[in-house]
Amino acid sequence: MCAIVGIINSKDAAKTAYYGLFSMQHRGQESSGISASNNHNIKTIKNRGLVTEVFNHESFEVLKGEMAIGHNRYSTAGSDSVLDAQPVSAKYSLGQISIVHNGNLVNKNEVRERLVEDGAIFQSNMDTENILHLIARSHKEHLQDRIVEAVRQIRGAYCLLILSRSKMFAIRDRYGVRPLSLGKLKDGGYIVASETCAFDLVGATFVRDVKPGEMLIFEEGKSEYKSVQLFGEVDPRICAFEYIYFARPDSMIEGKNVYEIRKKLGTKLAQKSKIKADLVIPVPDSGVPAALGYANESKIPFEMAIVRNHYVGRTFIEPTQEMRNLKVKLKLNPMSSVLEGKSVVVIDDSIVRGTTSKKIVELLRNAGAKEIHMKIAAPEIKHPCKYGIDTPSYAELISANMSTEEVCKFIGADSLEFLSIDELVDSLGSERKYSLVSFDGDYFINN
Amino acid sequence: MCAIVGIINSKDAAKTAYYGLFSMQHRGQESSGISASNNHNIKTIKNRGLVTEVFNHESFEVLKGEMAIGHNRYSTAGSDSVLDAQPVSAKYSLGQISIVHNGNLVNKNEVRERLVEDGAIFQSNMDTENILHLIARSHKEHLQDRIVEAVRQIRGAYCLLILSRSKMFAIRDRYGVRPLSLGKLKDGGYIVASETCAFDLVGATFVRDVKPGEMLIFEEGKSEYKSVQLFGEVDPRICAFEYIYFARPDSMIEGKNVYEIRKKLGTKLAQKSKIKADLVIPVPDSGVPAALGYANESKIPFEMAIVRNHYVGRTFIEPTQEMRNLKVKLKLNPMSSVLEGKSVVVIDDSIVRGTTSKKIVELLRNAGAKEIHMKIAAPEIKHPCKYGIDTPSYAELISANMSTEEVCKFIGADSLEFLSIDELVDSLGSERKYSLVSFDGDYFINN
Amino acid sequence: MCAIVGIINSKDAAKTAYYGLFSMQHRGQESSGISASNNHNIKTIKNRGLVTEVFNHESFEVLKGEMAIGHNRYSTAGSDSVLDAQPVSAKYSLGQISIVHNGNLVNKNEVRERLVEDGAIFQSNMDTENILHLIARSHKEHLQDRIVEAVRQIRGAYCLLILSRSKMFAIRDRYGVRPLSLGKLKDGGYIVASETCAFDLVGATFVRDVKPGEMLIFEEGKSEYKSVQLFGEVDPRICAFEYIYFARPDSMIEGKNVYEIRKKLGTKLAQKSKIKADLVIPVPDSGVPAALGYANESKIPFEMAIVRNHYVGRTFIEPTQEMRNLKVKLKLNPMSSVLEGKSVVVIDDSIVRGTTSKKIVELLRNAGAKEIHMKIAAPEIKHPCKYGIDTPSYAELISANMSTEEVCKFIGADSLEFLSIDELVDSLGSERKYSLVSFDGDYFINN
Amino acid sequence: MCAIVGIINSKDAAKTAYYGLFSMQHRGQESSGISASNNHNIKTIKNRGLVTEVFNHESFEVLKGEMAIGHNRYSTAGSDSVLDAQPVSAKYSLGQISIVHNGNLVNKNEVRERLVEDGAIFQSNMDTENILHLIARSHKEHLQDRIVEAVRQIRGAYCLLILSRSKMFAIRDRYGVRPLSLGKLKDGGYIVASETCAFDLVGATFVRDVKPGEMLIFEEGKSEYKSVQLFGEVDPRICAFEYIYFARPDSMIEGKNVYEIRKKLGTKLAQKSKIKADLVIPVPDSGVPAALGYANESKIPFEMAIVRNHYVGRTFIEPTQEMRNLKVKLKLNPMSSVLEGKSVVVIDDSIVRGTTSKKIVELLRNAGAKEIHMKIAAPEIKHPCKYGIDTPSYAELISANMSTEEVCKFIGADSLEFLSIDELVDSLGSERKYSLVSFDGDYFINN
Repeated sequence: MCAIVGIINSKDAAKTAYYGLFSMQHRGQESSGISASNNHNIKTIKNRGLVTEVFNHESFEVLKGEMAIGHNRYSTAGSDSVLDAQPVSAKYSLGQISIVHNGNLVNKNEVRERLVEDGAIFQSNMDTENILHLIARSHKEHLQDRIVEAVRQIRGAYCLLILSRSKMFAIRDRYGVRPLSLGKLKDGGYIVASETCAFDLVGATFVRDVKPGEMLIFEEGKSEYKSVQLFGEVDPRICAFEYIYFARPDSMIEGKNVYEIRKKLGTKLAQKSKIKADLVIPVPDSGVPAALGYANESKIPFEMAIVRNHYVGRTFIEPTQEMRNLKVKLKLNPMSSVLEGKSVVVIDDSIVRGTTSKKIVELLRNAGAKEIHMKIAAPEIKHPCKYGIDTPSYAELISANMSTEEVCKFIGADSLEFLSIDELVDSLGSERKYSLVSFDGDYFINN
Repeated sequence: MCAIVGIINSKDAAKTAYYGLFSMQHRGQESSGISASNNHNIKTIKNRGLVTEVFNHESFEVLKGEMAIGHNRYSTAGSDSVLDAQPVSAKYSLGQISIVHNGNLVNKNEVRERLVEDGAIFQSNMDTENILHLIARSHKEHLQDRIVEAVRQIRGAYCLLILSRSKMFAIRDRYGVRPLSLGKLKDGGYIVASETCAFDLVGATFVRDVKPGEMLIFEEGKSEYKSVQLFGEVDPRICAFEYIYFARPDSMIEGKNVYEIRKKLGTKLAQKSKIKADLVIPVPDSGVPAALGYANESKIPFEMAIVRNHYVGRTFIEPTQEMRNLKVKLKLNPMSSVLEGKSVVVIDDSIVRGTTSKKIVELLRNAGAKEIHMKIAAPEIKHPCKYGIDTPSYAELISANMSTEEVCKFIGADSLEFLSIDELVDSLGSERKYSLVSFDGDYFINN
Repeated sequence: MCAIVGIINSKDAAKTAYYGLFSMQHRGQESSGISASNNHNIKTIKNRGLVTEVFNHESFEVLKGEMAIGHNRYSTAGSDSVLDAQPVSAKYSLGQISIVHNGNLVNKNEVRERLVEDGAIFQSNMDTENILHLIARSHKEHLQDRIVEAVRQIRGAYCLLILSRSKMFAIRDRYGVRPLSLGKLKDGGYIVASETCAFDLVGATFVRDVKPGEMLIFEEGKSEYKSVQLFGEVDPRICAFEYIYFARPDSMIEGKNVYEIRKKLGTKLAQKSKIKADLVIPVPDSGVPAALGYANESKIPFEMAIVRNHYVGRTFIEPTQEMRNLKVKLKLNPMSSVLEGKSVVVIDDSIVRGTTSKKIVELLRNAGAKEIHMKIAAPEIKHPCKYGIDTPSYAELISANMSTEEVCKFIGADSLEFLSIDELVDSLGSERKYSLVSFDGDYFINN
Repeated sequence: MCAIVGIINSKDAAKTAYYGLFSMQHRGQESSGISASNNHNIKTIKNRGLVTEVFNHESFEVLKGEMAIGHNRYSTAGSDSVLDAQPVSAKYSLGQISIVHNGNLVNKNEVRERLVEDGAIFQSNMDTENILHLIARSHKEHLQDRIVEAVRQIRGAYCLLILSRSKMFAIRDRYGVRPLSLGKLKDGGYIVASETCAFDLVGATFVRDVKPGEMLIFEEGKSEYKSVQLFGEVDPRICAFEYIYFARPDSMIEGKNVYEIRKKLGTKLAQKSKIKADLVIPVPDSGVPAALGYANESKIPFEMAIVRNHYVGRTFIEPTQEMRNLKVKLKLNPMSSVLEGKSVVVIDDSIVRGTTSKKIVELLRNAGAKEIHMKIAAPEIKHPCKYGIDTPSYAELISANMSTEEVCKFIGADSLEFLSIDELVDSLGSERKYSLVSFDGDYFINN
């Protein structure tokens, strides 16, 4: 759950990478970084904080050149150091190299142990360092061959961008679990990014998605790029969560608009629902499109009855005793003037631990809602995702431990309904396969 | 266009003020400040920045006591100094006093000139300093009488909170142009705030609006408050812009929910429209409720076809030449997958200079919209507001200089329609009068 | 105990003021500020921190013009706000004005009370605000006359610089307690500064000291300045402490070099001492010149046996239990290899509370010194200074409460000797009178 | 040219390390860092800035445990990243390890190349990473044996501290070029530090110097430490520059007090000088002891005629055209009242490029000095030091390119005299050998 972006053969590449990262801030707010190559050497600036906090005017005096890669990191506990920011840049036997990485390697411990036994040192907690070591330890003469060798040793759901002084490599795992798209910049250069919303901001046009198992090779000064298929067999399974809540609604993933998909999920919910209600309301912002779909299908009026405050910063001042449910209330405020005495269908994108839903139901009740019917635009999350979405362990996943009825009771709703896995797949398009591990526990990438 | 909050007879008053300001961040992002009294002395912390940036844990070690007032300041040019942050605190003949102020005094220059001629010094550019001087120079024995005397010398649209060591005064101008509401805290204390959304976050219950021309007097340790009417005659005219775009949708102003009013404005637009279109889309976030109202009335499908990015910070890195319309694009991204080949009704809350609308139309065209019908949920802004809304001069107001047809051509839309003033008043409720100066030029407060 | 500097008719006046303040950082480390006039308006930048922390490149984009005044503020408790930084700038009946101030007004409470009764408001705790009010409330037509009127109402030890849009006024109290000198810049402009060391850094040449009771008037674009004597009778009494420890040794005060004076104080101490010792050692840095004078006169070898660490910042991490005397040890480290078994004369500039001297003696004993003879290059401080030097109250002044013998016992020295007041005056030059209030309690400026 | 400190078996080890680093701030101001082990894991905090800037109260919540190592880094160009701060911490086959390093490895490129060819990646520019890799790649079972194997592969002038979860290793190269001393803390723990001035601040007692080629092994919970001699043959050659200017005067290096040595260097200069002069003046601070020695020997009066300003920060505001020699003048100000018409002997510690000396001579002339006789308390620097002192290349070393007479002419002095190498050795004590590479070009450590 991070964002990556790469720019090649474009003036002020680092600036374009900056705006690309800016448009993908929703994929990671903990740290941000950019490496740029001016064909002679690679410079890197990275730090904890938002894109607009990490970089300033001086940054782009340092980050010169027509090639750049960038990264936004998602907040995870444990990682308390700038050393865990990306890109990871190093000197090795073929010169200088810099890597950014989105996803998760399932055999990282095994690879790391092998490397460590063989004398490698690890200065961070990131998977990315594994890949660097594999490349550095390869005996192949050319970087491209080394990358191939390295990538064949790792298993997982990942997208990689690798920058050398004169080349950029874009790689997607054989399942294509994480999205990665290719665009063309107005000055003839290329952009590769986790989401197509980055193309819109920088004025690039969508070319195509990078294919599962594909490696694109860009070279300084060359207007053509090469494509290599890294695996004999590919098995495309884009992550369903990208559509459900992770991606921006204006992004196109594998040819499908995220917003439209979310509307379909809501439509599906409405089709199977037997609930009569006065209003359909979303939990903003991610629940909005599904709620629109639900309202259209059910003909129940749509209302933005929960208002979201977007000014949520990092400082947390302990509230007074009288303020309850503060963490949720800082973001969400239900309007009693709309809700008073009403029976409402509430649309949310998922239930993970159940604690937030419980608080939302409580806030809605206090605002006067008479009946609260919670509809979730996804199936029950019963398994931890190991492929890059930050889900907690079995013990914390409420649907891994309770039936729908029990969850409903726990969160205090009058009814609760999820999509079935089939309904989800149907909405996404049954012509393809998806990564659905959180729902079905089918860990298709063997460790 | 600022937010004010006052807390009295409540434990940790400054913390409650902090959360009140946090919930009203939308009313001002330039600076923030809180004064607190522990009955012995008044301490103030203020600085440039968002509420979450100005205060930290240590702040509340300083801001002790059961009384506090706070302020968020709206960004305006010229003001480059912490000296223009509020509250303004001073020592004067009766001791210590601290003031926050929302609104604008129309006779400020006249008052200031008189004061200056009489030897007063002004260390800031704020109206607030005028009031301080008037109170300090009064010869009345009691603060309350001095405040009355001072307030009778100023004319304008304002709300004031005045904190002495043991009292708090809440005052609203005789027209009630700016909103101010009274709530009751769970521990028995009171809260006064520009918007009722502050009550929701801190767990207060709405008591009533402060009346036009009313002064509420709160005293330390007393559970009752007193009310004084400052003017023989009042002439209530709440500012229509609070409903149109300035207030948060979940606030109640003069008994009416802002969100519901905005929906009505959209309904009105739909009722008079003759346009047939495929979609109704809002300019988010403020255009959303009106677009919902329009869609409901017109039966044209509602779509969130423009996605808003909320991570907009202050650093502005100059973009590359290829990026156009950057300032608007940083916030708004229209989705071509929804818009391609469609005839759309676009709902926005107002047109000021016309430049933003022009860019939005251009972005929509680039995203493939076939026809663009712009509907504005307000009348044409033909006059500068002098009562606290930051509107530019006649020269910059596009509707002061162009007919609707000309504006339509300028922004590049296929059609453009505003609400009439009567339709606006009708939607707001014709039982009352409103401040409509920006629309009708009726400057009812004489300078 | 602050530093002030004024620049007129010189290109980039604010930059020169910056360097002037930089060279006088020893006179105040709490806050720093500069006002500059470009003949049209006055801009001010001020903040807490060292000169190099408060200003950056952008500051000088704001502080344009050929006139500037600046200030370094000494650290005092209580003052926890940027509002107590100088210059104080205000708008008043004649336009814009900015003031910096070094010293202390003895009738400030009386003046302030009178002003407050008359309706003035005070936004800071600074004397400077008094003067602003007096000027603003004067009924004279011209600023110069108003300043004269204002200054005649204040009593105290002070130097003032007052900047209007086109003039600068430099004023010294009738006793000339605080130093103020006039220099000429290479480009023909003038500089006025608390200490002449500022002239050396900016390449100015010393012209003369501003005289007690004198007001110099500089005007934009005029190469000549005017001088006005404000008081019929002057009574020059430069503060002895400026020579004893406050000024930089390379400054000339009233025609005398501070370093040379300090050497003389040491010589005097040696002349009356009957102590035989192996070494003379200074408490660095201020005790060095006196120790040199003592060593020269006594023929006892001089050793820099106490090493001073200059990297003392503001963060204070609580030490472990094993570390004692930390606050003194962070700065001073006696060398046992020099001190072991030696009888030493230690030269310090003064004893205030006695606690630091006690710790120094303890450190010297631990370093092996056999006998410790403390010699103080000043008389006993028996009275609080009210004229601008930050001395504590009678209760805390050790020599106000103990005889020399008792102090000697308290600090643990083998002997202790002060200069007598006569010896001090003799060293400073008996042809003049001095402010000696801390020693003799002669508060010659009546409240 | 850095500082290192290690603490073991002492409560709050990181705090003691902090104060140790604080007292050795003169050895490096660019970055600072501490790793602490609580016997379970190693935590590291490091950043650019002074010790007091890098650490705050929260740091010591993280840096728990009874073992810690710390580092101050000297400012060098090129290193623009926190990644070049020490300690370097990593996970490797035996667990976790952290290293700090003072000095320079002469075969670092050769070692690095070999490692890189063998697949190692380097994330910083520091020698320290070489050592980490050598340890990680060793096939020995125990860390101690791995360290021995690693150290035998590197050649250079270095001191190392290596922290594992339960042990600390202190190592000095076989020549003992860089100093490293062992002290005992009051609570029974040990401290190892570059300079003994660290012991004085934390209240430790000197035990002995670590011997050339020695490795001390400390273990958690054990009051005894072990010593291993790493090399069959040692050849002690402490760096002469530590005495000449690098160490603090209050440090003891190899049993000799730095201050006393510097005085002897001045005495030696006086003994051979034929100059008659009015005054001896030091270039402060490092020239002070030699000038005292010179004055004592020559009977010429000593004067602190150049005043040093210690408030030099990092911000550099471009001065006005009129200010010349600014960089030197910001620090040093000669007093004309002392110098006017005088013939002076000026004592400095060394001449590197000659540009600073040239400016000092110019400032002295402008201050009125009649004759300026420059005496350098060291021989001519004719060769770059490769053993850890930051000297420039041959092309920039003035004495590598000019005779003494030419240098004298270049800097504008009336005469110039250096110590001979023999005189230097004589002063340091001819019973030992020294690292004198900068003077004699004898690079005794073969690459």
